[in-house]
Amino acid sequence: MGVQPGDVVEIVKDGVTYRGTVLPRTEEIPDNVLVIKLKNGYNIGIKITPEAEIRIIAKGEPPKKYKAPVKVVKREDLPTAAIVATGGTIASRVDYKTGGVVAEFTAEDFLLSFPEIAELANLRLKQVSNIFSEDMMPEYWVKIAEGVGEVIKKGVDGVVITHGTDTMHYTAAFLSFALRNAPVPIVLVGAQRSSDRPSSDAAINLMNAINVAVNSDLAGTFIVMHETMSDDWTTIHPGTRARKMHTSRRDTFKTIGDRPVGRSLVLARGGRIVEKTIEIWRDEFRRRGQEGFRVDAKINPNVFLLKSVPGLRKDIFERILMEHDGVIIEGTGLGHVRQELIPSIAEATESGVFVGITPQPLFGRVHPHVYSTAVKMVSVGAVYLEDMLPETALVKLMWSLGHSKDRERVKEIMLTNYAGEITERSRPNAFW
Amino acid sequence: MGVQPGDVVEIVKDGVTYRGTVLPRTEEIPDNVLVIKLKNGYNIGIKITPEAEIRIIAKGEPPKKYKAPVKVVKREDLPTAAIVATGGTIASRVDYKTGGVVAEFTAEDFLLSFPEIAELANLRLKQVSNIFSEDMMPEYWVKIAEGVGEVIKKGVDGVVITHGTDTMHYTAAFLSFALRNAPVPIVLVGAQRSSDRPSSDAAINLMNAINVAVNSDLAGTFIVMHETMSDDWTTIHPGTRARKMHTSRRDTFKTIGDRPVGRSLVLARGGRIVEKTIEIWRDEFRRRGQEGFRVDAKINPNVFLLKSVPGLRKDIFERILMEHDGVIIEGTGLGHVRQELIPSIAEATESGVFVGITPQPLFGRVHPHVYSTAVKMVSVGAVYLEDMLPETALVKLMWSLGHSKDRERVKEIMLTNYAGEITERSRPNAFW
Repeated sequence: MGVQPGDVVEIVKDGVTYRGTVLPRTEEIPDNVLVIKLKNGYNIGIKITPEAEIRIIAKGEPPKKYKAPVKVVKREDLPTAAIVATGGTIASRVDYKTGGVVAEFTAEDFLLSFPEIAELANLRLKQVSNIFSEDMMPEYWVKIAEGVGEVIKKGVDGVVITHGTDTMHYTAAFLSFALRNAPVPIVLVGAQRSSDRPSSDAAINLMNAINVAVNSDLAGTFIVMHETMSDDWTTIHPGTRARKMHTSRRDTFKTIGDRPVGRSLVLARGGRIVEKTIEIWRDEFRRRGQEGFRVDAKINPNVFLLKSVPGLRKDIFERILMEHDGVIIEGTGLGHVRQELIPSIAEATESGVFVGITPQPLFGRVHPHVYSTAVKMVSVGAVYLEDMLPETALVKLMWSLGHSKDRERVKEIMLTNYAGEITERSRPNAFW
Repeated sequence: MGVQPGDVVEIVKDGVTYRGTVLPRTEEIPDNVLVIKLKNGYNIGIKITPEAEIRIIAKGEPPKKYKAPVKVVKREDLPTAAIVATGGTIASRVDYKTGGVVAEFTAEDFLLSFPEIAELANLRLKQVSNIFSEDMMPEYWVKIAEGVGEVIKKGVDGVVITHGTDTMHYTAAFLSFALRNAPVPIVLVGAQRSSDRPSSDAAINLMNAINVAVNSDLAGTFIVMHETMSDDWTTIHPGTRARKMHTSRRDTFKTIGDRPVGRSLVLARGGRIVEKTIEIWRDEFRRRGQEGFRVDAKINPNVFLLKSVPGLRKDIFERILMEHDGVIIEGTGLGHVRQELIPSIAEATESGVFVGITPQPLFGRVHPHVYSTAVKMVSVGAVYLEDMLPETALVKLMWSLGHSKDRERVKEIMLTNYAGEITERSRPNAFW
């Protein structure tokens, strides 16, 4: 069609004018479709019919291929971000064998689509895995933690981890515990729509993640994703209190039972960053530069997350308890199981199994003293984990059991607030 | 103190004047505490110190003891509600042995505290159980369904089921499926604070549940509970899409992924009903008087609800699948499990186990065609259950398996929308 990647074009079709930067072709894009990046950061695919008119507004340089790890043309005036790539939709494309999306996009491909980010920071890339987040396993968390540890020790202003959204909150929880006293922000980011699709949220999430990583005074592990359905603000969630709450919406992540850490806005126009803003609402996370950083990623993943539901078989319940080193129960209401099951908890705790109770309603605090059921559960050794989210408790228990086999010591670790996973006082307004 | 239950009193203490109706004593109330019902419907306990002043404004009749089943002085101008009591906080009091709350309040005690409801409807009481809802089991659901069936067949204008809040949504889901073509509203109601405590939400929830049961043109199963933290409006939730979302707040129930059915307001002043309003927002539930009512409570409870989480052991996953007749998986994101686990699903479905996939994020729809993982899961027989809530899917699968052993027939039942459990189109705004 006479255009090259990097060219700024105007396409007039059916009375609509689209203006944007031509993106490189990939083999999945049909020959008659041109993908351009609009001013708002979105990629859009336009079918070029005979009536369509294409005007080249400015000839561009095609974005360069990157090799990982590599430094882009280094600008002394810019901070440095490490991008730790793990896979996920933010770096994925359609597999025409199954028709689904697969995680085969490389770190190089992925940077190619987002030329603006070179204006935000000098980048160091590190690929630690290339999988969908549903395939994430505790051993990968350890690899990610070690990878982040390495880049931090080399010296960076912030770390961005690209990750599938499915289990991003589990990984974020692990890193919150494993990266002790991190001196910089470690920001997990992903996309709900793959980056080779029109209307992907990848670009905006990524720009904001980098913005928070290099420009905020935060330190610790966070998630940065769309705040609403609109492509403007993104929310900074604490790593231990975020949860994926919608299967498909781009504002799927929510901070549960507490206030988000803040928000970030980065606006790009014509491939240039024209605005970047950060608002921080929670001062306790402003601790960039803190000392004593170390990676403490010891883990025992033999833990089960069990939802207490009507009809749960006693024999199955017993076996799940006895075959793991720890079980996190999503208790109903204030943290209950059917009273008939309490003797099984007694048996398990006597054998040294750690049994932790978390809120099935997700919001609010479990409470061991309001109802007789809970009073009995505590008397047989169940540990009520305050307002810790079930998913976070699962991850923290793996980490705690990696540090001690002693149930009392594990209990002490579980009930110590390391990274905002337990709030001192519930915020009644942190709800709907 | 010279006052009798039913007296309207003013108590002046520390400069504050409390005005309300004296409630009967129960053995748990300390001798120096007087419990009065305030104008707003709340009960409050006031410690009577030597400085406190008590004035009797009007001598009252103590509320009469009821016996179940019993008709109160029948008023021809009022509709009739059946109250089916099952237990729970709405009918509970403190156990001074353990310090927790126990479900020992009888239907008689319970009516005693709410004299206003006699102005809303003639009542028929039926106690089917007296347990906390964490102890609810599928066999109790069947008893409740049969109990409701009996009272409906005798002829009532509406049914109110008092129930613990912990698992109220599971019971509501079951009744939504088991009470086919119900001709009247069946309203589940509970309380987050026990009715013998000051600031209980029991009275307001109960009045509104009765209002909706007898005065609305709805039919089917609903939950009526506080809309906000304030004591005014209550929300009418569809029985298949409600979820307890907070451990302690009185507005704990939320309609997930759809619009609530409507709302109800009943205001009582000085023991009299001064206002009752109902707003209905969803016309498809306006079907009072529909024909063909029957109780269809066949059930096979051998079903497990499994949350797919990182680190889930393959051997445990396999065993859970193989030892149940059906398993509902809370898949991550659009409905995924770790790809390594897919062969175990294949093995289970080949043995006739039904495997249904629901959204772990709770909001939104699972989708079998976006990612290759899901495409593979479908190819081995996993059934994607649209936007059905995991808890509702668990209950519906028990009900479906009670009707057929044939996996194809069960799939057909599961994918048929019986009571709003599957929406045709997601409502993107039915979120946060």
